[in-house]
Amino acid sequence: MNFNFEKAFVNDDEIDLYRSRIEKAHYDLHNKTGKGSDFLGWVDLKIDDNELSRIKDAATRIQEQSDLLIVIGIGGSYLGARAVIEALSHTFNSKKVLFAGNNLSSDYICELLEYVDDKNISLNVISKSGTTIEPAVSFKILREYMEKKYGEEESRKRIFVTTDKAKGVLKEIANQKGYETFVVPDDIGGRYSVFTPVGLLPIAAAGVDIDELLRGVYDAKDEFANLENNPCYKYAAIRNILYERGKKIELLVNYEPKLHYITEWWKQLFGESEGKDNKGIFPAGVDNTTDLHSMGQYIQEGERHLFETVIDVKNSNKELMLSCYEGSIDKLSYLDGKTLNEINHNAMKGTVIAHTNGDVPNVVIEIEKINEYYIGQLLYFFEKACGISGYLLNVNPFNQPGVEAYKKEMFSLLGKK
Amino acid sequence: MNFNFEKAFVNDDEIDLYRSRIEKAHYDLHNKTGKGSDFLGWVDLKIDDNELSRIKDAATRIQEQSDLLIVIGIGGSYLGARAVIEALSHTFNSKKVLFAGNNLSSDYICELLEYVDDKNISLNVISKSGTTIEPAVSFKILREYMEKKYGEEESRKRIFVTTDKAKGVLKEIANQKGYETFVVPDDIGGRYSVFTPVGLLPIAAAGVDIDELLRGVYDAKDEFANLENNPCYKYAAIRNILYERGKKIELLVNYEPKLHYITEWWKQLFGESEGKDNKGIFPAGVDNTTDLHSMGQYIQEGERHLFETVIDVKNSNKELMLSCYEGSIDKLSYLDGKTLNEINHNAMKGTVIAHTNGDVPNVVIEIEKINEYYIGQLLYFFEKACGISGYLLNVNPFNQPGVEAYKKEMFSLLGKK
Repeated sequence: MNFNFEKAFVNDDEIDLYRSRIEKAHYDLHNKTGKGSDFLGWVDLKIDDNELSRIKDAATRIQEQSDLLIVIGIGGSYLGARAVIEALSHTFNSKKVLFAGNNLSSDYICELLEYVDDKNISLNVISKSGTTIEPAVSFKILREYMEKKYGEEESRKRIFVTTDKAKGVLKEIANQKGYETFVVPDDIGGRYSVFTPVGLLPIAAAGVDIDELLRGVYDAKDEFANLENNPCYKYAAIRNILYERGKKIELLVNYEPKLHYITEWWKQLFGESEGKDNKGIFPAGVDNTTDLHSMGQYIQEGERHLFETVIDVKNSNKELMLSCYEGSIDKLSYLDGKTLNEINHNAMKGTVIAHTNGDVPNVVIEIEKINEYYIGQLLYFFEKACGISGYLLNVNPFNQPGVEAYKKEMFSLLGKK
Repeated sequence: MNFNFEKAFVNDDEIDLYRSRIEKAHYDLHNKTGKGSDFLGWVDLKIDDNELSRIKDAATRIQEQSDLLIVIGIGGSYLGARAVIEALSHTFNSKKVLFAGNNLSSDYICELLEYVDDKNISLNVISKSGTTIEPAVSFKILREYMEKKYGEEESRKRIFVTTDKAKGVLKEIANQKGYETFVVPDDIGGRYSVFTPVGLLPIAAAGVDIDELLRGVYDAKDEFANLENNPCYKYAAIRNILYERGKKIELLVNYEPKLHYITEWWKQLFGESEGKDNKGIFPAGVDNTTDLHSMGQYIQEGERHLFETVIDVKNSNKELMLSCYEGSIDKLSYLDGKTLNEINHNAMKGTVIAHTNGDVPNVVIEIEKINEYYIGQLLYFFEKACGISGYLLNVNPFNQPGVEAYKKEMFSLLGKK
């Protein structure tokens, strides 16, 4: 991974002023002495070999017995898997993994039931407690559907539960029904859980090579372990410096449509980690060049309260060369002999120039290509940067007390005791 | 449509202070005396009967001869059609309309070509000038693909062009090749063009009833025509009052996943109309209850610079009743006898209470259900509100000068003369 912090309009002197805070954040994170230190299991993540085999084995059985897997989960039990799967799957071919339990829409679940009616399915329900209403309701509906379709015995082979190791409603259901279970670790919060069984089972079932994914994570863990010359820390410092200067919105920018859900995952990671105590950068995203023709006007000339972090994917996986002869009806001869990826990159470079000229600071993160290894690296980079950034902001980056507020009001309206 | 402006924390006295500005905006919009008055064709929109027949006829031919239609367009030539089609289509069944020309990703177009290889396709390319690089490049690639697959003669029957009535590269190509053409009106800008042939042809080809859609638009046109008691104007005034108070971000909130692209369309509409002269509300969106578990923490407790506009869809199209007996393993008996839509609405109501308690103003817009008629109404509501809101902000809501900046830099990098 390469990083270009130059166009962020923050110089090294300014970052030096953060040095003692970065040091403290680094030691707090690595020595578990800071806020939220019960949830730092992701920092030195290592998936146990037996656990990994069991995940791969379950994924193989899911693939063999099903046309598709329905993953039931919300928030951190949803976005990580979806982000990795969409980044690494064919854009148009029919999906091997669908998602439920991430909303309460009646039309959504009814249409899902219609769609799977002539298909063989498996379920992976993911919830630490089992009481979160969205996955609980969807799991009830889908479990009953499966028991009707397959019977209790066959359903048992098709339902996989990822939950607390010992307690909670979902664990009880799994015990009672005899479902195979995977563990949501106690020391890793939802938004940091993509490289635990929470994310790994659906990702493996989608056909993604999770060994390669983890190789990227482990390499990133080493690459971003040290206090000195750590781009995670530099990114974290720059974000906080820009925020102090009034840049209250950060846009994560991609030029590859498959990265859309990486942005959604990133929005949860940073928004939920930093958005508290009436502060925090508002995380948003654009998928370019698509959104240059919708949000582009605002970014170029609207209120000057934003900055951008651009993911630059150097090489495409599939290549296409344009041949446009002079005088052809398209009038595209200026593109003759260029690859589409080259054109896309010139759009990106031109946009970085235009937006920085328009007083929008830009950070550019370069990855070689979209594959398991580099996606693993990229996500770990953001996780580490986010933990440090939250410490620099002086919040607890590992709790989410505000998520309870709507639940409390909703449960009261629903008459739950 | 019903409107609840109560929880926006803006009282009628404050809106009264805007009265003279609203009056001026109203007259400027209806008498074409304000900024950007060359682009007000949408205000009193009426689609010619012959044009409408021709659109329906083309849509029928597309459906008969193809498994799917590929729509090539970007920005306003993309988002309106996509928003309406996704809102009114089955969530999971395979798509009848796919989109291209809305990005420059090599993987995207290569995978599209792979996907359609064993399918019969038609094309609708939409571009006023024909020089916008994304649709121009995609059209070149797809036109060459079709001529190879079907030959020139058969391709002619499968390619439909929506462009300027007389001039531009795309018009020239259409003339030379003999493609059937539809007109992008001169007096309607891209982001306001969904109810012209730009949006109507793809929407009709997707199987949506465009008569019902237009009935909703025409009714909304009457309902929101007058100066007095006009909810468009009230919404426009409230947005500006909140903006002046430091609420710099507006979130459009839905509880139905199918409305996701309505939000994307709305982001272009408001962002491109108001984001200029270094001002304007930053438009963002959340899909709930999904995003209550990602962006929810920030909205509840982050920086207090945002407000929400909630789309409340009263009735679902498909209904599901929960039966949860006391003592069942799910522990969901508090939901016994409730429909899923009821539960979803209690989540919505609880969230409005929780967020307003957290000092996030909320506007609620209620529509009966998701169908052609109400979607037509809703979109026209936003169009009218946006024009007025831009005038209240004292910008030209109908231009987009900033979109050229990245193009200029990109063309220079690409060596275009």
